[in-house]
Amino acid sequence: MSVAARSGGDAVSIEGRARIVIEGVTPEVDGGRFPIKRVVGQSVTVEADVFTDGHDAIRAELSWRRDTEKEWQRIAMKPLGNDRFRAAFPVDELGRCVYAVEAWVDHLLSWRLELARRVEAEDIASALLQGAVLIEEAAARAAASDAEMLRAWAAQLRGTQPPTARQRIALDEEHYAAAARYPDRSLALRSAPELQVVVDPPLAGFSAWYEFFPRSCSPEPGKHGTLRDCEARLRYAAQMGFDIVSLPPIHPIGTIKRKGPNNTLDPGPDATGSPWAIGSAQGGHTAVHPQLGTLEDFRNFVRTARTHKLEVALDIAFQSAPDHPFVQAHPEWFRHRPDGSVQYAENPPKKYQDIYPFDFESAAWRELWQALADVFRFWIAEGITIFRVDNPHTKPFAFWEWAIGELKGEHPELIFLAEAFTRPKVMHRLAKLGFTHSYTYFAWRNTKYELTQYFTELMQGEGREYFRPNCWPNTPDILTEYLQFGGRPAFLARLVLAATLSANYGIYGPAYELMEHEPREPGSEEYLHSEKYELRHWDVERADSLRAFISRLNAIRRDNVALHSDWSLRFHNIGNEQMICYSKSSDGGTDVILTVVNLDPYHAQSGWVELDLEALGVDAQAPYQVHELLSGARYLWHGARNFVQLDPSHVPAHVFRLRRRVRTERDFDYFL
Amino acid sequence: MSVAARSGGDAVSIEGRARIVIEGVTPEVDGGRFPIKRVVGQSVTVEADVFTDGHDAIRAELSWRRDTEKEWQRIAMKPLGNDRFRAAFPVDELGRCVYAVEAWVDHLLSWRLELARRVEAEDIASALLQGAVLIEEAAARAAASDAEMLRAWAAQLRGTQPPTARQRIALDEEHYAAAARYPDRSLALRSAPELQVVVDPPLAGFSAWYEFFPRSCSPEPGKHGTLRDCEARLRYAAQMGFDIVSLPPIHPIGTIKRKGPNNTLDPGPDATGSPWAIGSAQGGHTAVHPQLGTLEDFRNFVRTARTHKLEVALDIAFQSAPDHPFVQAHPEWFRHRPDGSVQYAENPPKKYQDIYPFDFESAAWRELWQALADVFRFWIAEGITIFRVDNPHTKPFAFWEWAIGELKGEHPELIFLAEAFTRPKVMHRLAKLGFTHSYTYFAWRNTKYELTQYFTELMQGEGREYFRPNCWPNTPDILTEYLQFGGRPAFLARLVLAATLSANYGIYGPAYELMEHEPREPGSEEYLHSEKYELRHWDVERADSLRAFISRLNAIRRDNVALHSDWSLRFHNIGNEQMICYSKSSDGGTDVILTVVNLDPYHAQSGWVELDLEALGVDAQAPYQVHELLSGARYLWHGARNFVQLDPSHVPAHVFRLRRRVRTERDFDYFL
Repeated sequence: MSVAARSGGDAVSIEGRARIVIEGVTPEVDGGRFPIKRVVGQSVTVEADVFTDGHDAIRAELSWRRDTEKEWQRIAMKPLGNDRFRAAFPVDELGRCVYAVEAWVDHLLSWRLELARRVEAEDIASALLQGAVLIEEAAARAAASDAEMLRAWAAQLRGTQPPTARQRIALDEEHYAAAARYPDRSLALRSAPELQVVVDPPLAGFSAWYEFFPRSCSPEPGKHGTLRDCEARLRYAAQMGFDIVSLPPIHPIGTIKRKGPNNTLDPGPDATGSPWAIGSAQGGHTAVHPQLGTLEDFRNFVRTARTHKLEVALDIAFQSAPDHPFVQAHPEWFRHRPDGSVQYAENPPKKYQDIYPFDFESAAWRELWQALADVFRFWIAEGITIFRVDNPHTKPFAFWEWAIGELKGEHPELIFLAEAFTRPKVMHRLAKLGFTHSYTYFAWRNTKYELTQYFTELMQGEGREYFRPNCWPNTPDILTEYLQFGGRPAFLARLVLAATLSANYGIYGPAYELMEHEPREPGSEEYLHSEKYELRHWDVERADSLRAFISRLNAIRRDNVALHSDWSLRFHNIGNEQMICYSKSSDGGTDVILTVVNLDPYHAQSGWVELDLEALGVDAQAPYQVHELLSGARYLWHGARNFVQLDPSHVPAHVFRLRRRVRTERDFDYFL
Repeated sequence: MSVAARSGGDAVSIEGRARIVIEGVTPEVDGGRFPIKRVVGQSVTVEADVFTDGHDAIRAELSWRRDTEKEWQRIAMKPLGNDRFRAAFPVDELGRCVYAVEAWVDHLLSWRLELARRVEAEDIASALLQGAVLIEEAAARAAASDAEMLRAWAAQLRGTQPPTARQRIALDEEHYAAAARYPDRSLALRSAPELQVVVDPPLAGFSAWYEFFPRSCSPEPGKHGTLRDCEARLRYAAQMGFDIVSLPPIHPIGTIKRKGPNNTLDPGPDATGSPWAIGSAQGGHTAVHPQLGTLEDFRNFVRTARTHKLEVALDIAFQSAPDHPFVQAHPEWFRHRPDGSVQYAENPPKKYQDIYPFDFESAAWRELWQALADVFRFWIAEGITIFRVDNPHTKPFAFWEWAIGELKGEHPELIFLAEAFTRPKVMHRLAKLGFTHSYTYFAWRNTKYELTQYFTELMQGEGREYFRPNCWPNTPDILTEYLQFGGRPAFLARLVLAATLSANYGIYGPAYELMEHEPREPGSEEYLHSEKYELRHWDVERADSLRAFISRLNAIRRDNVALHSDWSLRFHNIGNEQMICYSKSSDGGTDVILTVVNLDPYHAQSGWVELDLEALGVDAQAPYQVHELLSGARYLWHGARNFVQLDPSHVPAHVFRLRRRVRTERDFDYFL
């Protein structure tokens, strides 16, 4: 087996007789430089252009294996026309798989196809002898059980019956199928480079995240919350139907240059500091902030979360406060100014004196890389498998590719969320090099045009092979103007959009469900009295909380597999620029969810949706039921055009399940 | 200098500090697997996505070199926004060039940009010291002439003047430009793999071909023409303005199983045979058919052609007649049937007993490859640089890639035209692997929709980097139904389309200019009494010949650089489905040719053209002249919409040169 490498020059001394061409193998990312991504239980559909010179028949196989195994598994590829072939393989285990396309000129198949077209007895007789040789060669490669049968078949072809009679014998399907199991692969080629797929855990494909600040969980206002205080909050998040609770950094907070409330430079004596100013005399990235509790408290927190079927995501921010132990122990990991002081973060004229970035151009970069990877390893050993990585785009791409590669190699169940809100190519690079999930521009895509363009790009563009969107309507850093001014309808609409457009979504709470909407100052997207800089006390039992709505929405997500993946997203026309309509379908189309959202938080809007019924697998001639899952109401629709009205003073969205009419044997109709 | 290779795994042991990312380098074909193509005197515009983590400034350079040289030449790339950079390099010599993108994080530039934004004296003072260090490092890398100046500059930055005064000195443009010439490339990366461009001779970019059968050139009807008889035909082709005369195979024709007129199996005693049934006792692919003359006659033919500024293209068909010397001398190069006979070409139930294909799966494939390459070498030694390769898609792709690579390596002036009319991916593969020109589907693209779609794909699609169309309205094998039934207007229209849509075109004559249009039988695209199987006598002085029209058209092509390249092709609306309108422009837009063709050979058609005047660089407010170059007529047009009528009983096409009004100092208007 040669690979389909460059055949100029070298080929003369290698194997010039291999006549097959394999090109255009998909899916691939940057020519195989990066892996594609899948979730356990999915499959990879591979296509390739395969052809040879002249008229000979060819065969193509999809080959795949676990990257830890040597033996390839193979499946025949089917021709799609225009020299394109396709096959799929399942990915049932976490980790990496490798795939390629193998193909060869198949003389036995060529012979068979030509024999069927031969007319003159003399030609047939000659071809029968050629075929006998090919079949005997197959017999020599065959398992003993088949070899004898094949030899007997060849003998018949060489026999004394009239050529046309032997032609019929030679064209026997069953005998051919046996011979075809032992093809002559001596001149087969395999596509190069081998392509890779990273197979992630189910939560990578479908998840609802709830981020909250443990230090604000004290039942007593003004008191620093502890991890033990969070038990109620865990139960609360689980009741809302979330899968993952995500915590800001839980490490000791620097005391030098500590920031005060609203990111001021005057902390005052009681300032709690920012959890992202990591490290003090009490420890660094592998320590627990004493005001939150002990490592044992953290273990208990994780255990409790598990009892609620919640996974815990930690925030990993690779930067140090001035009093982080690293600063003393490893001055070589930081950049120094001419006066010998450590260089703090800055973007002139802005200065962040409470943050020391690592110097990844340090001569001691190898030790730094290892130390940072070991931070992950520490928490992995504590049972954490999900990490929200803070500002990964301010650390080298090569570091992340190495670190995630190493860690996922050790623990393929890991999930890394890239907290990068930056330029498109930078975000894509982080996704390519290994981040499991990526934050998106969703928070700033508010109009129908913006949402349609952006989600079409996310779900149908080439990037979907590696960029898995995780959509958040708010984060501790992001309170959009739409939420600042849109009131309750805005919070409801953005929640429905996030939860139904994207299989992976999250909110920062209780700010979200309590509709916190005051910015630090006009024009700012920062929260006033942000939890990043001070303790907050949240009354999660408030009557106007969105908690029940969120619970309902998460239950709908969980119950409907249509919402468990992204690629089936399809937008449908609705004749109102303030309304958006889209569907998602399960594989096979048994579950179809249709969502309609009024994007105008101030006025009732209505319009006629125009569904692509054929794409949805709905019979345009028969009525069908739309079951509104938020309210439980059911409507009978007919045909593509149907009327929808949404009043933001009630709920600005419909989430419909399409139910097709089923007629039973006893002539009893119901909707499935 | 490291290459931007995979940075996972290995990178730890190599260079993890290199923080630059280079991706999406264009142009490239299949990730660098194949070269792009250019013509001497053109340039290659290269783009790439380049970025790094964080906020540091970066610099990117386009690097290129001849593949035979080691030293890279470099040019700074300019940012286009969205992390994309661009630069161009010229290709002034035949052969291959290699190109790549180099980039690095530039601390001096970062320092400069940040220094400009610094406000506080303390910060400025500290930054000045940092800058002094960076400048001293640049001085250490600098040429002696610059080093001293740079050291003096650094000393000023360390000086005693107030920080803001020193800040002004530090931001000096000229000093910075000197320092920037000596960047710190220690952590630079170069994109990988290196990309290649094949630089072809001018005739590869712009050429008019005239194919004819020398054996039909005898002044005496019924007599076998000789190469010496062709002198008049060479003068004739030159007078029509062609650049290349293309000959069918000129080798001895097999006598065994020779075909008769109209491809019949009964040759009769006087049958001349097909020039593509190559080889007899009189020689093979390196011999001249005795009835055409001697090798010396051929040399004389080539010399005479040169006096007319014509290049000679030979037809290379790698197949043998049964009596080709190879069949006896190298039986191992052919496939044998069970009865020991050599396998002739067949596509059951069709049989071609006069043709033996080579067996490229022969164990002796190396010798076969060399022998075939030596056929080219033989004719190259006779001064031939242009080859029309017959049916390359029935020989292995690997062979062609090797052979063309070797031969172009020895003789970069060579031009290979792939005579492959087959499936799109096969034709593209041949173009990718090295064929200079490709035949196209032009002959079968007749409607406005077909022509617009196909030429947009050819001239604007990704394939344009390697697939150079050579458009022929007819060939010895192709007489389309449009020509069979369309009469003179069809021949005129198809000629204008080929010559103005494509920079490279050709005709098979004198059949074309004499409007030969009888098919062998209804539904066939073969000529009746095809020259492939018998002698013809052509009266090239016939009064209705298209000769003068062709001369005019080729003169227009030669005089107007707009028609010398393909990529500027732009279609313009014209409100009549039977009329097509398109333009080509020279670089810079000084020469603009607008062509309008009536595709209906039977009726006069008219319509309003709607020009994209902005794209053509024409002032929509001022009148402009369209100079009809076929007739010499001049019309004054104004604005985008203008009326055109074309009567096929006269000439079914206009070829306009756009002439813009120029006002001189003396207030005298003329059209340039």
